Amino acid sequence: MPSIDINADLGEGFAGGSPPDDFTLLGIVTSANIACGYHAGDAVLMRRTVVEAAKRGVAIGAHPGYPDPTGFGRRDLAATPKEVTAYVIAQIGALQAFCRAAGAPLKYVKSHGALYNRAVRDAATADAIAEGMRLVDSSLVMLGLPGSELSAAADRAGIPFAREGFADRGYHPDGTLTPRSEPGALITDPSAAADQAERLAGQVDSICVHSDTPGAVRLVEAVRERLTGKGFTIAPFTR
Amino acid sequence: MPSIDINADLGEGFAGGSPPDDFTLLGIVTSANIACGYHAGDAVLMRRTVVEAAKRGVAIGAHPGYPDPTGFGRRDLAATPKEVTAYVIAQIGALQAFCRAAGAPLKYVKSHGALYNRAVRDAATADAIAEGMRLVDSSLVMLGLPGSELSAAADRAGIPFAREGFADRGYHPDGTLTPRSEPGALITDPSAAADQAERLAGQVDSICVHSDTPGAVRLVEAVRERLTGKGFTIAPFTR
Amino acid sequence: MPSIDINADLGEGFAGGSPPDDFTLLGIVTSANIACGYHAGDAVLMRRTVVEAAKRGVAIGAHPGYPDPTGFGRRDLAATPKEVTAYVIAQIGALQAFCRAAGAPLKYVKSHGALYNRAVRDAATADAIAEGMRLVDSSLVMLGLPGSELSAAADRAGIPFAREGFADRGYHPDGTLTPRSEPGALITDPSAAADQAERLAGQVDSICVHSDTPGAVRLVEAVRERLTGKGFTIAPFTR
Amino acid sequence: MPSIDINADLGEGFAGGSPPDDFTLLGIVTSANIACGYHAGDAVLMRRTVVEAAKRGVAIGAHPGYPDPTGFGRRDLAATPKEVTAYVIAQIGALQAFCRAAGAPLKYVKSHGALYNRAVRDAATADAIAEGMRLVDSSLVMLGLPGSELSAAADRAGIPFAREGFADRGYHPDGTLTPRSEPGALITDPSAAADQAERLAGQVDSICVHSDTPGAVRLVEAVRERLTGKGFTIAPFTR
Repeated sequence: MPSIDINADLGEGFAGGSPPDDFTLLGIVTSANIACGYHAGDAVLMRRTVVEAAKRGVAIGAHPGYPDPTGFGRRDLAATPKEVTAYVIAQIGALQAFCRAAGAPLKYVKSHGALYNRAVRDAATADAIAEGMRLVDSSLVMLGLPGSELSAAADRAGIPFAREGFADRGYHPDGTLTPRSEPGALITDPSAAADQAERLAGQVDSICVHSDTPGAVRLVEAVRERLTGKGFTIAPFTR
Repeated sequence: MPSIDINADLGEGFAGGSPPDDFTLLGIVTSANIACGYHAGDAVLMRRTVVEAAKRGVAIGAHPGYPDPTGFGRRDLAATPKEVTAYVIAQIGALQAFCRAAGAPLKYVKSHGALYNRAVRDAATADAIAEGMRLVDSSLVMLGLPGSELSAAADRAGIPFAREGFADRGYHPDGTLTPRSEPGALITDPSAAADQAERLAGQVDSICVHSDTPGAVRLVEAVRERLTGKGFTIAPFTR
Repeated sequence: MPSIDINADLGEGFAGGSPPDDFTLLGIVTSANIACGYHAGDAVLMRRTVVEAAKRGVAIGAHPGYPDPTGFGRRDLAATPKEVTAYVIAQIGALQAFCRAAGAPLKYVKSHGALYNRAVRDAATADAIAEGMRLVDSSLVMLGLPGSELSAAADRAGIPFAREGFADRGYHPDGTLTPRSEPGALITDPSAAADQAERLAGQVDSICVHSDTPGAVRLVEAVRERLTGKGFTIAPFTR
Repeated sequence: MPSIDINADLGEGFAGGSPPDDFTLLGIVTSANIACGYHAGDAVLMRRTVVEAAKRGVAIGAHPGYPDPTGFGRRDLAATPKEVTAYVIAQIGALQAFCRAAGAPLKYVKSHGALYNRAVRDAATADAIAEGMRLVDSSLVMLGLPGSELSAAADRAGIPFAREGFADRGYHPDGTLTPRSEPGALITDPSAAADQAERLAGQVDSICVHSDTPGAVRLVEAVRERLTGKGFTIAPFTR
């Protein structure tokens, strides 16, 4: 029976406060991309989110972003590859320490927002992320857009790569995401999200729903139900 | 022949910039307490400082502080023990990742400024620091004031403790440091610092000179020269 | 007919995002204490909140706090009076600029969280706040706890003072607030909040409901209804 | 007798600390662009720098940048025009409050680093800056590169513009600055800086020397001496 993972960005709160749906989402996703304090999150929230994910058997990934809390890491920042590598190392290290404290492994790294989007198309940025991962722990899996510079960089660095698709984001015909500034960027209708998840499920290892997309819990439920109905087991990805 | 360590706080810059004396100090101290981004430092600077320390065989310690860059971590902040533990885990984790990337071990943890001073006299804060250390890596050594709550907390947590003395700070008769707001808090005369280091050397494992004390390089040189003249080998502490 | 003001802390979001109830609250309160970017808020959110308050004829106050976004300004920070004055000037200045841009006056200053609580009992801190207000614009009204050091400091500085009471916070018999760490600190039952507002209404100029108290909108509605029923006009305070 | 202004960026420290040359520079420049806490500076330092500038009769300008302290505001950030306007308003407001507290006028606004460089070539960013200035105080002068989008935006907004040239930066033949990542970006030889200042003096209202260019004090002295020798009075620009 085929298996598919569902991931969501979690721990993206401020001032120690969990976003309202985080604990509900932790009960229905199988992988948690946890913010590491740069675009959102802080130490108290990182710890709580790691502990709660570990309790529920949810796989844990680091979710590093640009140091831009004001912009939630969603604005491009002209950081150099050397800066990106340092940012990735610091964020992975902090999250991995919370994983060790909780007795749970850190499994993967999925970059956030504008850093992700730049790395999809810019080899130097993607290599900088892969380099940070490799230097800290070369067994970490990179989770990202298939066919992108992220996946090529993982190959070059010799680190494992897992492919993700987005149930709640529009795609351009070339496989890139519709930017958030354009119409059609967000899919908020649960059955449309389930349709897209179904289309993607055979091609990717993990389906993402953003926790800040309106109605995220209902989207994840719809995706789970559809994929289960189509014979998929919902479980953390394996690489 | 007796051995003594000399430690300094390094990497306490901002915006990626190394403080002016950091590289000189790295050539004459034997242990570097490296700021972890909360009271000072950032990822680029942490990485550079770790790499340069590793090159010179200087032992590396994490130097966690309160999340108060505006106050350089030198103002007391009413953080709860749970918050302190989370802050310590995040900061150790980030620095340890840079150590792994550089192929150098993270050896110890010395808390910074107001966090250090509170933990010297407050058992709950000291326990919170020790708990964070133990959860991440119980082989890490706590470096701190002998006879203080820090040392008691290390004992309670079952983690090793190394005793430090300050060549550049005045002491009250009870063994606590003269607060920076009082006269006599700072010793800036090299021969007075050397005198104090000589008095302390038999009782502690490491002598601290603050890198932001005026004339820090000359103070360290004076301390080294005096202690070498008295038959000490200057080398990283061993526990 | 007696008149009473209702104030709430608004604009206390992060990353440009308004807290969920802010716009609803702006329709039912008469004074808005707007966060100024230190404990919460950012420039985009400050501007939006000022504009929306001005549109609805809600009186605008600055809500300065400690530079502690991680702790939401609710932890005491050992800032000196000189630092407090500088923090207050910077925060008032930023908010006043958004008021000028919106063509609305900045009317008052209500300090936030741990800064407020310290100033209630510490004359030096209260004087530091009053000094900052006086230096920027001596016509600004200080809003605070009656009978506290805040009110004494306003008198000493020659600036006007308006008295506030809290509908959603417990009081100690001495008139100070029950700390948030103690039981009974928060009143979340609308009719209990209305009872307390009714008791306070004759003694104060403004009734506060915290926007982050659970059910804040229903609390404000209950307070408005009760006070209107008792013959009060709900309107911005006048000094 | 012709008159020329010399400006420098000041108050660009962290954790309340003044950069080492700031007070020396305040004695030899005639206009101070003071950092407003976004790319550098904090409330304590803003206040001190404003007070010291006022004491010496140095004209005061706000020096707003991107909210990127980690990158010192020197990395482009994809902020929207609406965000830029909000950032400019908040920063001008804070500095203007310190000016009021010191009894000195805020005279002008010179944007910093990557924000300046983007606005030189991007009309929407330049308009966003001008809009922020106009909304707070339409008598504020914009200081910037002549012939750039900054100057066009000031014209469109109906605010005064003063032209500046850089003694310590290389120029491309088209009048734009050599980027800091290219060779020849910085001029650190005092007589070369004086040569360039002399060439520029007839065409601009103010000559800039960056306070973090190595040897900034000697560069300013060389520029002053040369221009005085050529018959210029060194004085704040007038518009």
